[in-house]
Amino acid sequence: MQPDKLFSRSARLMQPSPIRRMAGLVNQPGVISFAGGMPNPATFPDKDLRRILDEIVERDGSRIFQYGITRGLPEFCELLAGLLTKRGVTIGDGQGLMVTNGSQQGLNLVSQVFLDPGDVVLVESPSYVGALACFRNHQAELVGVAQDEDGIVPEDLAEQAATLAAAGKRVKFLYCIPNFQNPSGVTITPARRARIVEIARRHGFLIVEDDPYGELYFSGVKPGDIRPLKALPEGEDVIYLSSFSKVVTPGLRTAYLAGPEWVIARLELAKQAADLCSSSLDQRLIYEYCRRGLYEAHLQEVRDFYDVKCQAMLKAMEQSMPAGITWTRPRGGMFLWGTLPGGMDAEALAMEAVQHLRVAFIHGGPFFVDGTGQNTFRLTFAKEDVPAIEQGVRLLADFFLSKVAAL
Amino acid sequence: MQPDKLFSRSARLMQPSPIRRMAGLVNQPGVISFAGGMPNPATFPDKDLRRILDEIVERDGSRIFQYGITRGLPEFCELLAGLLTKRGVTIGDGQGLMVTNGSQQGLNLVSQVFLDPGDVVLVESPSYVGALACFRNHQAELVGVAQDEDGIVPEDLAEQAATLAAAGKRVKFLYCIPNFQNPSGVTITPARRARIVEIARRHGFLIVEDDPYGELYFSGVKPGDIRPLKALPEGEDVIYLSSFSKVVTPGLRTAYLAGPEWVIARLELAKQAADLCSSSLDQRLIYEYCRRGLYEAHLQEVRDFYDVKCQAMLKAMEQSMPAGITWTRPRGGMFLWGTLPGGMDAEALAMEAVQHLRVAFIHGGPFFVDGTGQNTFRLTFAKEDVPAIEQGVRLLADFFLSKVAAL
Repeated sequence: MQPDKLFSRSARLMQPSPIRRMAGLVNQPGVISFAGGMPNPATFPDKDLRRILDEIVERDGSRIFQYGITRGLPEFCELLAGLLTKRGVTIGDGQGLMVTNGSQQGLNLVSQVFLDPGDVVLVESPSYVGALACFRNHQAELVGVAQDEDGIVPEDLAEQAATLAAAGKRVKFLYCIPNFQNPSGVTITPARRARIVEIARRHGFLIVEDDPYGELYFSGVKPGDIRPLKALPEGEDVIYLSSFSKVVTPGLRTAYLAGPEWVIARLELAKQAADLCSSSLDQRLIYEYCRRGLYEAHLQEVRDFYDVKCQAMLKAMEQSMPAGITWTRPRGGMFLWGTLPGGMDAEALAMEAVQHLRVAFIHGGPFFVDGTGQNTFRLTFAKEDVPAIEQGVRLLADFFLSKVAAL
Repeated sequence: MQPDKLFSRSARLMQPSPIRRMAGLVNQPGVISFAGGMPNPATFPDKDLRRILDEIVERDGSRIFQYGITRGLPEFCELLAGLLTKRGVTIGDGQGLMVTNGSQQGLNLVSQVFLDPGDVVLVESPSYVGALACFRNHQAELVGVAQDEDGIVPEDLAEQAATLAAAGKRVKFLYCIPNFQNPSGVTITPARRARIVEIARRHGFLIVEDDPYGELYFSGVKPGDIRPLKALPEGEDVIYLSSFSKVVTPGLRTAYLAGPEWVIARLELAKQAADLCSSSLDQRLIYEYCRRGLYEAHLQEVRDFYDVKCQAMLKAMEQSMPAGITWTRPRGGMFLWGTLPGGMDAEALAMEAVQHLRVAFIHGGPFFVDGTGQNTFRLTFAKEDVPAIEQGVRLLADFFLSKVAAL
């Protein structure tokens, strides 16, 4: 057989994530890891989940194990609608909701429903690599939009949109992670959110708002700071994705998306052909977990858990990082983002650090779509405990100092 | 917003299954249903699954709830490889394996990796509507291949392949369900399997072998009758899909596919962008269920369960169906296939039957890609018990008799 003759054009373009190449090194014992992007398993409420599992399987028996509805278990969807109401997003009245296998499936279905080869997707610079891979698999052209400590820069968004329109390009949507972004830790300010929605409407493209971290806010954050773009007066066409992966457990593949019914109806058809339905067991388990009020109480614990680690990392950074290195101050989520002096190669440093220093972090280049960001890096505070965070940051600071001094 | 301007070309083509329109009627209480395609929940081993769930969550704790590997839980993949060995399919030595969320996801990933718009997929006439929808969503051109009581007609396959090649069309693969096919209940004979593999090799297209029903054979079937095309000496390029949906439970979305490593590696990249990984809980649950030897014992029970129902349906058909109506004699699976005299409209009859007779079946037209099959229908014996099967067939026979007499 001749693979290259048989593969589709998109399959021929598929590439393993450049970050995955480091995975083998990162997970070695003895390595302090600021790499990876997984939630800390210490936050998983496995005792509660075990008890609920036992009760629901006893109570519901074989009903649990039958095929489910493509949009999701009806009572679960109702609960999710209630959860979204608290964030200011109303389902019904032309708005719909669907359960997906993680938000990654939501992103893939959105890509399938909106992207033809050559269509433009606007993405934050930097952005989540899993989303970039998904859009690339649908042969989209990815265009980066500038981002600073306040999130997407509206002026740049408007300018990019105008330039692309003038060049005859078709922008289908802006993909953004407004709260405690992966990878940057940055949050878009309320004022900018309103402007972004307004720019999208004016230029006729959609917004795909990915919000896996919104519930993971730290002390001092007010609801108004992180209100979804979809909750804005003109946000009805926004497609909003959220997930239980970071706040309960990712092994249960249970996320959800909300959007205008004309979008959800089409996404439902795409999901039906993509996998018929999501796991009944996973959905019922998360449903019961929420219904019993355990989710809200658990959330507060998880927020505190990551808040402590984040503050420890930020404090250690302040104390030890050499001049010339800057970083973001996340107010939630799992990540912070660093920038080395221009010309430094974060990828080479990451490789050297994990091998010789036994401290792992992720180089920033792959999070950009334009080849920039070679001097940037991502740190997660999710995995290690506070002493390891302090030790790791100190080691990293000394390491960076030696490299900056050698410039 | 202007949906039609924003949707992708494939999204604009997506259509709800014509079968789904009947779903509301079929599921009314009091209806004897030979429609639907779900396994009977009485076959789900929920007591065993409950016990295992409790044990594995206690033993493995939060490990169960973390993100998993895209290809699937390693120990589960190893077990699946052993299971395939028993069917004559060897993993390793250039062959790989991956876990999917039901075989529907496998079909969608295969479509994504192989199909560009306009590529041809050869399908059995009739074939599984969920697969047809999936291929259509990737803008494939579907071409039907003749099928009789012995399965795909090799002469027709060869002729179609030659005609398509002469017309400059690019055939990417043949999609087939060789054992107890949905919808026809037909099984491809061993002699024809060898010829089909040979024709595919000669014409340079792949075979996608979907085998959800192979383990559901009835008494009298020998292993040699249903050996996978992939197990044939020249079958190494065959992509083979199988699933636990019909033989354990479909609510746990746990299926698997095997194929040449060059295919699996690309499918893995596609799955990574499609949903990162399958449910850890579902995989561990099925893994433990198999590892403890419960699967083999359970299979025999499920086979007997459906065998009894099938024989009851066949016997009732023999006794009561009027002349001019023919049907297949399935040796496994969940379906049999009927043909009414030419010119009769099975869709109108199905609608009338469910409304007035309170007996539901599915019209055959949507299972064909060329607009034929208007006088065909599918019956499942999976759902009803033997008395209901006997009663339903008798009612249906009288109903058909009145319609045939009126011709």
